[in-house]
Amino acid sequence: MHIKPPYLLFLGDARDALAAKVALGVKQWRPENCLGQLSLPGCNADAGLPEMTVAEAREAGAETLMVGVANRGGVIGPAWIDVLREALESGMDLAAGLHNRLADVPALAETAAAQGRSLFDVRFPTQRFEVGNGRKRSGKRILSVGTDCSCGKMYTALAMERELRSRGVAADFRATGQTGILIDGSGIAIDAVVSDFISGAVEVLTPDADPEHWDCVEGQGSLFHASYAGVTMGLIHGAQPDALVLCHEPTRRHMRGLPEYPLPDLEVCMATNLAAARLTNPTAKFVGAAINTSALDDAAAKRCLSETEERLGMPCVDPVRTGIARIADMLP
Amino acid sequence: MHIKPPYLLFLGDARDALAAKVALGVKQWRPENCLGQLSLPGCNADAGLPEMTVAEAREAGAETLMVGVANRGGVIGPAWIDVLREALESGMDLAAGLHNRLADVPALAETAAAQGRSLFDVRFPTQRFEVGNGRKRSGKRILSVGTDCSCGKMYTALAMERELRSRGVAADFRATGQTGILIDGSGIAIDAVVSDFISGAVEVLTPDADPEHWDCVEGQGSLFHASYAGVTMGLIHGAQPDALVLCHEPTRRHMRGLPEYPLPDLEVCMATNLAAARLTNPTAKFVGAAINTSALDDAAAKRCLSETEERLGMPCVDPVRTGIARIADMLP
Repeated sequence: MHIKPPYLLFLGDARDALAAKVALGVKQWRPENCLGQLSLPGCNADAGLPEMTVAEAREAGAETLMVGVANRGGVIGPAWIDVLREALESGMDLAAGLHNRLADVPALAETAAAQGRSLFDVRFPTQRFEVGNGRKRSGKRILSVGTDCSCGKMYTALAMERELRSRGVAADFRATGQTGILIDGSGIAIDAVVSDFISGAVEVLTPDADPEHWDCVEGQGSLFHASYAGVTMGLIHGAQPDALVLCHEPTRRHMRGLPEYPLPDLEVCMATNLAAARLTNPTAKFVGAAINTSALDDAAAKRCLSETEERLGMPCVDPVRTGIARIADMLP
Repeated sequence: MHIKPPYLLFLGDARDALAAKVALGVKQWRPENCLGQLSLPGCNADAGLPEMTVAEAREAGAETLMVGVANRGGVIGPAWIDVLREALESGMDLAAGLHNRLADVPALAETAAAQGRSLFDVRFPTQRFEVGNGRKRSGKRILSVGTDCSCGKMYTALAMERELRSRGVAADFRATGQTGILIDGSGIAIDAVVSDFISGAVEVLTPDADPEHWDCVEGQGSLFHASYAGVTMGLIHGAQPDALVLCHEPTRRHMRGLPEYPLPDLEVCMATNLAAARLTNPTAKFVGAAINTSALDDAAAKRCLSETEERLGMPCVDPVRTGIARIADMLP
């Protein structure tokens, strides 16, 4: 799946910034791919890009209209269809990561077919995969793993890519979820792959590379999440990580969506992830922790990071507050 | 998926007994569901059932023709189509666990539709599942886990069901792979479920039950298999096992299909499986090991079992050679 830049980011009628988090993420991590934004009446989000009509964006060279908004329910809004069709008619592709498919909206499917345009429904892999083979691949890989879902694994992998590139190190973010795929324009939604092929799909996602090249692989779920640990396990095995970053949200009271499940102890979580990683890469090691301190004030965040660093004996940073350089320093 | 008995077992042109292992398994574990067998010229397998034509089987009350044979490649053989269509026309359903679907053979799909018959392609789940919720369910569950693939997990679960029923204990085999599903007539091919829903599918497979009822859940893969461990992990979490049986083939030199991967140490394998199981059932424990000694002579098998039993400190049996009673004795 390779979505063609540059993009017109569609903000739709996003009721707040959170509803437009995909658009904001694309702008944050791939600003060079973003030409403009298109809002509908009632939109309360702003990606800080020039507001453009479809015609203006196309004139400026936009190749893809990217749906950067999720409404309640995460489906394609009826109010959006006219704009999406207009984009297809103007010569753009469409990309979205919603629960229903662009391709399942007849007006869009017909227009795309008539115009020869592509519809990228990134939540639904179209590629067929093989069973994982476990063969050691060339190049280096860093993988974010977490105590829980939604605690910063995508952000950490993107921040590491940016940090390494800023140092002149060849590095590529490898997206495994729909937001990451839309940000990067490519990737595989691992949780939508048939379970027999989880590790095989990750092997395809992060192929052989130059010996000094780093793939920064976006982790998913948690080995301690009763709903998703299978995805996490297959992802770890397929990634063959040389380096692991532990992602954690220190104020969370229970596993996301599972009120009866406490978060794992950090040391137990590290040992379990390390054992899994070493099955396919015996030299795997932790290089740091990325602590999401967004719910803490400055003083509490600083204390949390220093206490966790002392406890775990490796760099503990908040990629947003402190950057990720100290973890990058640890890479083998 | 509920396949209606009794069955006519289709042996086709099986080149040897191994090619007809599904039919032999159905006959071994569900003899009460088997009316007869149908062989084509050149068949070298025998399930020990009366040979019947389609018409004779239907006359005797057969509800389903079950494809109990796999040819090279595991696909539907062209030589079989006439018999399969005849079965549909006589009023039987069809069931198979092959790599291609009965439903994708136009002659069969059309005949089934015209006759109002069902085609069960057990390798391809048609049900939609929810994400696992991890909520504790009533009833008891025993799960077979393995050092590797194909080392006796299905056999162990079936043997445990039979042992418990012989003691008057309510028990149900829960099939998670295509052979198990064809044997039992129901189940879910877990490795074909989208990876987000592995544990959720297993939660559906083994629902709330009477407090003293045992589900004997068929394990899949191994937490130490680089291709399939994600499936295994989600299956363990969804099963919430009270009791685990370790399945092992002591003469295997490397993980199945992965020549570079050695088998795990038994104690490490047990500890890893136990930790995974305790996420969703903190009282999970190992109750024994089922050692597949088919490659050993009697003396070597006996020695292997007694040495392993001493080493692990729990009953070690070969379900085929010695039965599984000593493990059943250990159930909480």
